Amino acid sequence: MKTFEIIGLIAATLTTSSFIPQVYKAWKHKSTTDISLVMYLILFIGSMLWLYYGLMIQSLPVIFANGITGTLVAFVVILKLKYK
Amino acid sequence: MKTFEIIGLIAATLTTSSFIPQVYKAWKHKSTTDISLVMYLILFIGSMLWLYYGLMIQSLPVIFANGITGTLVAFVVILKLKYK
Repeated sequence: MKTFEIIGLIAATLTTSSFIPQVYKAWKHKSTTDISLVMYLILFIGSMLWLYYGLMIQSLPVIFANGITGTLVAFVVILKLKYK
Repeated sequence: MKTFEIIGLIAATLTTSSFIPQVYKAWKHKSTTDISLVMYLILFIGSMLWLYYGLMIQSLPVIFANGITGTLVAFVVILKLKYK
């Protein structure tokens, strides 16, 4: 595997897992006032479309990254609606 | 252009532009307490690595999407630090 491919995998892991601290913070503090619901709704739709695209081009990294991102983003939407 | 490629472009546009409402909300309300700084720092590093990866594979969509995402995410980090 070439160096830049490893960097691509690290990038995918970082951008995907970056939502975990936001889910944790919203869940722990039960406060989401400053979080933009519009952002997370758009992000959810976007990651679902990326997931479809990944399935079409049969790219495991795209499928994997957006499956997780979509799930984490859905959690933030639920927490946002719960603790408006 | 095939349908799924159009869907990929829509996905890239949505996930990239999704940060605009969060930048606007943070700037307008001058309040970022509920926003996870850790998330945005990881996201910034991730988008910069994606940008490098895009340059290596010479993919305009990856370069374009992550250049914009990185800029918007940097704005959120600045607003977060300013309005802790």
